[in-house]
Amino acid sequence: MDKLFNPKSVAIVGISDNPKNMARMILMNMQNWKFGGKIYGVNPRGGEVSGVKVYPSLSAIRGKVDVAVVLSPAQTVPGILDDAKKKGIEYLCIETAGFSEFSEEGAQLGELIKKKAADYGIKFVGPNGLGAMNARTGAVYPFSFIAPFKPGCVSIMAQSGGVGISVMNGLLEHNISANKFVSLGNKYSLDEVDFLKYYIEDETTKIILCYLESVQRGREFVEAAASSVKPILVFKANTTEVGARQAVSHTSALVNDDKVLDAAMKQAGIIRVQRLEHLYHFARIFLQPPMMGNRISLLSPAGGFVVMSSDCAEKHGFVFPPLSKETQAAVEGQLRAGVIKVSNPVDLGDAFGTDTMLLTIDKTLGQKDIDGSIIVSARRPLSHYKGPFKSMMRNPVPELPPLIKKHNKPVIVAFIGAPELVKEYREDSEIPVYHSVDLAIEALAAYRKFCTRPKPHAPSRRRPQLPKEARRRIDALKPGVVTGAAAFRILKDAGIPISSFRETTTPDQAVEAAVRLGFPVAMKLDSSDVVHKTEFKALHLNLRSEREVLFAFNELEKVMKEQGVTGKMLVQEMVNGGTEVIIGSKRDPQFGPVLMFGLGGVFVETLKDVVFHLAPVKPYEAEHMVNSIQSAALLRGARGLPPADIPALVDSLVKVSHLVAAYPNIVEMDINPLLVREHGCSAVDARFVIE
Amino acid sequence: MDKLFNPKSVAIVGISDNPKNMARMILMNMQNWKFGGKIYGVNPRGGEVSGVKVYPSLSAIRGKVDVAVVLSPAQTVPGILDDAKKKGIEYLCIETAGFSEFSEEGAQLGELIKKKAADYGIKFVGPNGLGAMNARTGAVYPFSFIAPFKPGCVSIMAQSGGVGISVMNGLLEHNISANKFVSLGNKYSLDEVDFLKYYIEDETTKIILCYLESVQRGREFVEAAASSVKPILVFKANTTEVGARQAVSHTSALVNDDKVLDAAMKQAGIIRVQRLEHLYHFARIFLQPPMMGNRISLLSPAGGFVVMSSDCAEKHGFVFPPLSKETQAAVEGQLRAGVIKVSNPVDLGDAFGTDTMLLTIDKTLGQKDIDGSIIVSARRPLSHYKGPFKSMMRNPVPELPPLIKKHNKPVIVAFIGAPELVKEYREDSEIPVYHSVDLAIEALAAYRKFCTRPKPHAPSRRRPQLPKEARRRIDALKPGVVTGAAAFRILKDAGIPISSFRETTTPDQAVEAAVRLGFPVAMKLDSSDVVHKTEFKALHLNLRSEREVLFAFNELEKVMKEQGVTGKMLVQEMVNGGTEVIIGSKRDPQFGPVLMFGLGGVFVETLKDVVFHLAPVKPYEAEHMVNSIQSAALLRGARGLPPADIPALVDSLVKVSHLVAAYPNIVEMDINPLLVREHGCSAVDARFVIE
Repeated sequence: MDKLFNPKSVAIVGISDNPKNMARMILMNMQNWKFGGKIYGVNPRGGEVSGVKVYPSLSAIRGKVDVAVVLSPAQTVPGILDDAKKKGIEYLCIETAGFSEFSEEGAQLGELIKKKAADYGIKFVGPNGLGAMNARTGAVYPFSFIAPFKPGCVSIMAQSGGVGISVMNGLLEHNISANKFVSLGNKYSLDEVDFLKYYIEDETTKIILCYLESVQRGREFVEAAASSVKPILVFKANTTEVGARQAVSHTSALVNDDKVLDAAMKQAGIIRVQRLEHLYHFARIFLQPPMMGNRISLLSPAGGFVVMSSDCAEKHGFVFPPLSKETQAAVEGQLRAGVIKVSNPVDLGDAFGTDTMLLTIDKTLGQKDIDGSIIVSARRPLSHYKGPFKSMMRNPVPELPPLIKKHNKPVIVAFIGAPELVKEYREDSEIPVYHSVDLAIEALAAYRKFCTRPKPHAPSRRRPQLPKEARRRIDALKPGVVTGAAAFRILKDAGIPISSFRETTTPDQAVEAAVRLGFPVAMKLDSSDVVHKTEFKALHLNLRSEREVLFAFNELEKVMKEQGVTGKMLVQEMVNGGTEVIIGSKRDPQFGPVLMFGLGGVFVETLKDVVFHLAPVKPYEAEHMVNSIQSAALLRGARGLPPADIPALVDSLVKVSHLVAAYPNIVEMDINPLLVREHGCSAVDARFVIE
Repeated sequence: MDKLFNPKSVAIVGISDNPKNMARMILMNMQNWKFGGKIYGVNPRGGEVSGVKVYPSLSAIRGKVDVAVVLSPAQTVPGILDDAKKKGIEYLCIETAGFSEFSEEGAQLGELIKKKAADYGIKFVGPNGLGAMNARTGAVYPFSFIAPFKPGCVSIMAQSGGVGISVMNGLLEHNISANKFVSLGNKYSLDEVDFLKYYIEDETTKIILCYLESVQRGREFVEAAASSVKPILVFKANTTEVGARQAVSHTSALVNDDKVLDAAMKQAGIIRVQRLEHLYHFARIFLQPPMMGNRISLLSPAGGFVVMSSDCAEKHGFVFPPLSKETQAAVEGQLRAGVIKVSNPVDLGDAFGTDTMLLTIDKTLGQKDIDGSIIVSARRPLSHYKGPFKSMMRNPVPELPPLIKKHNKPVIVAFIGAPELVKEYREDSEIPVYHSVDLAIEALAAYRKFCTRPKPHAPSRRRPQLPKEARRRIDALKPGVVTGAAAFRILKDAGIPISSFRETTTPDQAVEAAVRLGFPVAMKLDSSDVVHKTEFKALHLNLRSEREVLFAFNELEKVMKEQGVTGKMLVQEMVNGGTEVIIGSKRDPQFGPVLMFGLGGVFVETLKDVVFHLAPVKPYEAEHMVNSIQSAALLRGARGLPPADIPALVDSLVKVSHLVAAYPNIVEMDINPLLVREHGCSAVDARFVIE
């Protein structure tokens, strides 16, 4: 891929001297950026554009060509690929639109160029995008004007070129800049996994920003990200129905289930941001010394700001250790009228000058129990201050880096209601200066999350080994829905506890089963045609006598006749007490088998209190899932209820994750409910969807 | 209050020619702002400051004084009040700090000045704040420098002066400005209710912005707000523990229960914003034509922006009606390469010029089924465009107002990644231009919420009339906790259905009661010392025989002995089926009786799925509460369960709200659970806290 970003020679295919020709902009960009290598034009009509010779074809060029940038009509692209092969070009940047994102014919054209490229061993960016650029070499391929800037350390990957460029421009506001950029477009050849791997290896890239609309090779993306020590920030669009519809017409994006994606990113140690703009607003903070905990000092010269910003900080998980005696004495020594009590958060009150601010930062960062600092202020431009105030109120930002270096802890600054001041303070600043308290604190929280994240890891690629019985049984399954006794047997073979049951076909058998299992019992119609039992009156609970069993059998037989289904009657021990949970799994087309856990019973669908994790999971991950649901307290024992057997639950989660990871033909399954009691747990109902 | 904002003469108490004197800034402000009336200085040392004569005392001034602004040490303030009384001054603006927010002695001083002012019939702003200002008259009292600006139509009320001024400055970014301003400080005399009422009446105020840390007269605040046709936007800080601790030391704010406050604001039709900066970012949009629904057109020249912004819009409840044939034909007529499908949201693709943008806005606003429009773009400054692009890419903002006027619908614009362009576009702009898609959409959503809100109304002041029996019984209650039979009787008298019960003291009575009520029964220890029954083993459920009743009686007697409590045994019919909900109430010190509703049983405390409303409630409000909980679907019948009897539930909610509104001595109560069945509902357990 190095050749793509650091070419010695580039051909621009589709360029002409027509003022409306869009490929001309590519040349203009490369000339503005002072690209050091050779540039050739390609167009059947030949000629010359801005001092660059235009050849009739790629193969007509004399010298070697490392990269061909293509912006000619879609139907010409297959021929250009043939020509590129002839010329021995390895990398193309196809910016042309009109493929699968546009029409059925376009999609066929897309398949053709995919095939040709694969046959020829050619790799390409796009089509339907702005290509790529390297700010360090001036290899700037977008057909959109890019004003030159000093290259920085942030590399950007964006499915949409327009959005990617806005992110690149946004960085400049923060006195930080892009290193490499790619607009993925339809990613028929090179995709997010290829560029992510390249950016992770690339020495001059320190931070990776991604705007994604879909992730196609999910597991590989997670694996690559998990191997990175560099921060990777992702904004994922296309999370709603309208967004998805738009994305299909825009870059043929496939929709990922957003919750699955979220779980996968967490697992990979990726920082997922909730707003596009956070990509550029947050970047600079990732160059600060590490934020090793959530303990901060917060200082402001206005009491109101202290109140509102400490609210906000607390919401984002920050805490405020008390000031040490030394810090307190030092700050109080600066007070004038002595009308402010000094504690953390620090209301600087009438001691609002820059010296006091810097002293407080120095002292609080010096405390072992403080991990970083936030300054919140609402100053006015220096020209507003007269006489002694002028030096008192001088810009504190240039004096912060030595303190940051001394203590090796981050400091961020928020200035409110004065955009011109923020602009001035950001100039040549090495530290993040914000225009909003919320944004500043969100940025610091994202950074803390990155610095203190557990070691990321991708789920194992090794196929888990199941007991022989389970393997035999699953291998024998036919496509379709598996419920009732058959489903229970799979669980049992896989080592997952189930509540005892017997299959019966006559009333006498049912009564005998009930007597053996012990009253009360439950009775279910076991038929693959009936999935949600409560909906089809196919479930009788709490049967306490032979008479009740016989009545239920009779009723279930009626339901069978009415619904025209066949099946057996399952008599099952009635498990009372315990908390109903759900364990489920589905095979995500991009991320593979995903494990789900949540509160069960009727609450699954109404409260949606569920969490996801890529399967297989390790016990500590399963335990983390259990603790992550909103109603986790119910399992730990709420209001005098005994705590549930969490180790047993964790064991079942791990075993289900092995089951689905081992058998790709299980495309969906759930146990709902699994009853978790004080001692042990058991599956009360289960179903599998086999492909 | 008019005199405070439009005085003919102002005295500044505490001014001197010492360069460090802070009261001098007040004079400087008033002179900068060209205050038209008389200004006097007051200081025992006399003299002159900047051409203004300084008198030794207020009473020494010859002319009339409308307002005295006080910034002299706290201990001098009581004497100044005496002097003000002597001079016949009605309004003071006390900016001095060092009262209850600082120390015990300060608090005593505070009580003294409250008393004096009340005795003298003097009203004052503060203390411990920046006072007030009127941009229209130059009556600018803050001791902090305020650069003059053209007065606007936004009036600001802020508990913290520093925060208030940052909001005022923030407005200027959006080419909109403040009209009146007040920093409430400790609000010993004039408070948020006084200023809210004044702003609502004030003709030149069109929008009211509030930064509040506490609301003291909650009901009156709600009543005033509910009477306003002007938009009132509130940012409430002090919502977390740290915030609250800070607020106490800052302005002695009392903490309101945030959920209660939230419910009260909703009821009053107040727009509560989640970020301080939203106050100034949102203001301008409230001057647009009304946004009468959630149906928008969204257009952007970059496909990626269409995806991410339609995601965001959908999250905020907007929908995208299809384009009419006419609109579609008109827009498609503008396309160049014809590679974009035109639908709403509108990807303008290669037809990204200003003319196409304006045409699309005109056509889509013309559709009856569209309520407003959003433009999302990532343009660059005009200087970046050459030749024909220069006019093609001209600023669209000045050409939007005629279209907005023509269709009487709002349009907002978001430009990303180009702050200098946003600045340029905002200049002289009448419409909101944003620098962030999320912010633009949040602003439009807030405005839609305001335009389409139900008619706000404050809860009735009339004390609800209860049946005579209930009145007699409640009047007789002694302070303390009331549970069991006594609590049931109150509910019954108030017309709230309860499950049948009998009080018993002997095993024989218990058995007889069980037989009469019919098996199964529940048995409870009825003792005011035992509140959460499940925790104290004081509850036996599902007793199916005489033997079980006797056993339970025995067990409960043991518990009574162990716990050393006295009481009776309550035998109660066992209600099976139905959904457990909770109805509760507490008397909020600021907002009075508040009704709570939520999912009941063990879920109350873990899921916290509850909503609040000021009591009393009307049936439609109770119904709204029922529909507002997250798990409302459970009541409407989820997964084959029968729907619950919502009219019966609503009736109970209304009756409980009447009960607590009628009886201020009920400071807390709950029914948990109330079982709502397919037909009817009944209280299974209840308790009251009487004061």
